[in-house]
Amino acid sequence: MSYAALHEHHQRLSHLRHVEAIVSWDESAMMPPGGGEARADAVSTLRGTIHQTATRPELGEWFERAFGERANLEAWQQANLREMHREWFRATALPQQLVEAMSRAESRSEQAWRTLRSQNDFASFLPLLRDVVSRKREVAQALGEQLRLSPYDALLDGFEPGARSAAIEPLFTRLRAFLPGFIAQALERQKSEQVLPTVGPFAVERQRWLGLELMRRVGFNFSHGRLDTSHHPFCGGVPQDVRITTRYDVNDYAKSLMGVLHETGHAKYEQNLPPSWLTQPVGSARSMSVHESQSLLLEMQVCRSRAFLEFAAPHIQQAFPDAVSVAPGAYTPENLFLQAARVEPSYIRVDADEVTYPCHVVLRFELEKSLIDGSLRVDDVPEAWNAKMTELLGLSTLGNDRDGCLQDVHWPAGLFGYFPTYTLGALTAAQLYQAAGRAISDLEDQIRRGEFATLDAWLRDNVWSQGSFLETNDLVTRATGSPLSTAAFERHVTRRYIERL
Amino acid sequence: MSYAALHEHHQRLSHLRHVEAIVSWDESAMMPPGGGEARADAVSTLRGTIHQTATRPELGEWFERAFGERANLEAWQQANLREMHREWFRATALPQQLVEAMSRAESRSEQAWRTLRSQNDFASFLPLLRDVVSRKREVAQALGEQLRLSPYDALLDGFEPGARSAAIEPLFTRLRAFLPGFIAQALERQKSEQVLPTVGPFAVERQRWLGLELMRRVGFNFSHGRLDTSHHPFCGGVPQDVRITTRYDVNDYAKSLMGVLHETGHAKYEQNLPPSWLTQPVGSARSMSVHESQSLLLEMQVCRSRAFLEFAAPHIQQAFPDAVSVAPGAYTPENLFLQAARVEPSYIRVDADEVTYPCHVVLRFELEKSLIDGSLRVDDVPEAWNAKMTELLGLSTLGNDRDGCLQDVHWPAGLFGYFPTYTLGALTAAQLYQAAGRAISDLEDQIRRGEFATLDAWLRDNVWSQGSFLETNDLVTRATGSPLSTAAFERHVTRRYIERL
Repeated sequence: MSYAALHEHHQRLSHLRHVEAIVSWDESAMMPPGGGEARADAVSTLRGTIHQTATRPELGEWFERAFGERANLEAWQQANLREMHREWFRATALPQQLVEAMSRAESRSEQAWRTLRSQNDFASFLPLLRDVVSRKREVAQALGEQLRLSPYDALLDGFEPGARSAAIEPLFTRLRAFLPGFIAQALERQKSEQVLPTVGPFAVERQRWLGLELMRRVGFNFSHGRLDTSHHPFCGGVPQDVRITTRYDVNDYAKSLMGVLHETGHAKYEQNLPPSWLTQPVGSARSMSVHESQSLLLEMQVCRSRAFLEFAAPHIQQAFPDAVSVAPGAYTPENLFLQAARVEPSYIRVDADEVTYPCHVVLRFELEKSLIDGSLRVDDVPEAWNAKMTELLGLSTLGNDRDGCLQDVHWPAGLFGYFPTYTLGALTAAQLYQAAGRAISDLEDQIRRGEFATLDAWLRDNVWSQGSFLETNDLVTRATGSPLSTAAFERHVTRRYIERL
Repeated sequence: MSYAALHEHHQRLSHLRHVEAIVSWDESAMMPPGGGEARADAVSTLRGTIHQTATRPELGEWFERAFGERANLEAWQQANLREMHREWFRATALPQQLVEAMSRAESRSEQAWRTLRSQNDFASFLPLLRDVVSRKREVAQALGEQLRLSPYDALLDGFEPGARSAAIEPLFTRLRAFLPGFIAQALERQKSEQVLPTVGPFAVERQRWLGLELMRRVGFNFSHGRLDTSHHPFCGGVPQDVRITTRYDVNDYAKSLMGVLHETGHAKYEQNLPPSWLTQPVGSARSMSVHESQSLLLEMQVCRSRAFLEFAAPHIQQAFPDAVSVAPGAYTPENLFLQAARVEPSYIRVDADEVTYPCHVVLRFELEKSLIDGSLRVDDVPEAWNAKMTELLGLSTLGNDRDGCLQDVHWPAGLFGYFPTYTLGALTAAQLYQAAGRAISDLEDQIRRGEFATLDAWLRDNVWSQGSFLETNDLVTRATGSPLSTAAFERHVTRRYIERL
């Protein structure tokens, strides 16, 4: 009875979050600039209303009674109860007023960031970021007390339930040890290769056509989703209506194409979550790292492989006949592979190759931990950023905050504790894909033929249909036979960037 | 003190309605078809939440106290209190459960209508429409009891506060007497005219360019709004972020262009509402008829005039160089005017000229009154529709429901009591524009030069900046010197269609 009340309550919550997801997408993909001020107020009230609903006073009693009746529940309902309680326990740590103030500060700061980043103006952005960080520290403190976690782990746990800094640090330490030497080795290997450039212009409409075509081929369901343009690409919306975005560079079609395939990986996860659980916490995507594993499995493991590029080459050639006629050799599968699998230390995380990418994440993880524990002041971020970029990738960002600490939407939008999930996702993607390869003997040949059904079935069984039924560690261990490590990732990058398989 | 609480409460309400407006726009302009089912649930819960907020139990006491302190309020606050109370009194007539059930029925029926209309399938639509009508009758009954109005007038009052069937009927009776003879006269006059056809194809991108260009010239503010495509054109969003839509016909650019200018008239009203009152009921658009008067003033009074078409002709020529080169004579201001001011009895309301348009409205007004009072059964709508179309415009819709009773989104979406506001708006537009013409002696010359600032200033003073400060009748009388009548409209159509001025 109490479980049924909780079920219905979460249904209503999911409806309000549906609305929140659509207006958030709208804000990034559709909203004219003058709409921002009023939108920030509107979304803040909506979030406050959701928070108020999520913490309504009856819930404590309902949970107590539902846990008492737990033995009568089916397994998925028990998992649902665990996830409901996890959310609620987290939400009750924060007074509604703080949630709304936080939301307003984040909206304003994110909106200002859009302009100030392009103007390379950290000074003007500083007061807004200070405001976001100081409020976020207050939030982290309150959450940490409730959850009995350090403030940073309390934020991390919001994106990655069950994850702890102490468990992430050994993985990142291993990557810090492995990567610098590996990057040098890969760069050395590349020196001996001839790669022909693909030279634009690549008309935006043709890029969009190509993106839509390959989305369709790899299994994006257009009855339940769409592709648009935004400043910062993302996957939003709801499982029944997934909104992915990209941005176009007329001189580099591959940036948008690979971005679209990346977001399509996120989208396929959402579109294939268990249909009958969709309005319930147990029906949601497991965590950000599992989400990222699905985007990276598609982009990095599948779409940047030799096999996929053999399949994709004719589509790419069809999209850009003029560019191809100038330099046909640049659009052979072999050359497209050498382009798609290229290591190059660079400033911008979202444009980074998969080998240098973890360095960007380690940098942010270390800085944001310090921002939240108070050992780093917001004013000192540009300098600290530069120091770590120099140390990790040999690049200086002094005076270039646009391509340094202003490059990401995350901190302006208040998303602290999110960054490590990208690299956890990369490790998970490699581990899952190697497990899928053990289960499907001709996987590479299938991909070369543009056939994704068998891989999708494996992912559906092992990841998509699970929703949040299992904890992340259990999901990974069940699917791959072992807990998460860096081994599969190291093997993957060695095969691709050294052995060139 | 109680007034201040009411003020803040309405601010929060306006935030939630902002969100509702954006997701409604999204549903019509962006949402993929598979998203509909989940969206209907989400919007229903949002509307329920808004309704719950709008009827929270403290309000009765707040209103009582605020009315007691009324003498201390400024005039705009007193008007605001009147409008707040009007909304609340209306909302408290309906239990939340009925509001949510209604919302779900309307969403489902509107979504089904999109497909079934194009399939000319009234039979499949019938159960959905029956459901909407029977629930709407229940709603109208409950509202009528609370407001001491007939059920139909209670619905009408929701779109047109203060309007009553008994006041509309004499105006419509006069139009029923005037129009048939006038239409015959105009058709006779047209026989002697040579009108050259404009022959497409008119590429959608060029039509969009032209629409955006003229929107800009007539004063749409793109920092606070945008233009998109939808099945049924509308003006949505919020004053700070107005979303207008159009649809394109490659064989007839003028349909979309005049539609865009029509919606731009709506949009300018929204964008110019009093900025400091925007989150309050007194800051909202006065009523649907006043809204429609602003779209029709721009489309019918201004943009289909000889003067405007002299200004617009070069833009139209620039948009479609290929079409113009085939038949340059079709794109002269004179010919464009004869095309834009042409009477022709036809099936589709939204495509109707301004002379036959009121016949479409009278038909719907009469039918929907009967549907709500129960004297017409939903099953008999196609037949009744056909009878009135034959009587009013000499056209039969037998077996052609797509172009008959299935053509409008209103009934599928539960909007009963809305239709009469179109013709009240047309009468108001004519009366306002003639008053503006008396105040601005060279108005026509200004329009010929593409200058709208003086007209906008007059409209801002008399309509836009008023929000809902005055009641509709007072607003019209104050702006034009007399209460609403058909005289200005009759004079306008006589000048345009008989005297051809």
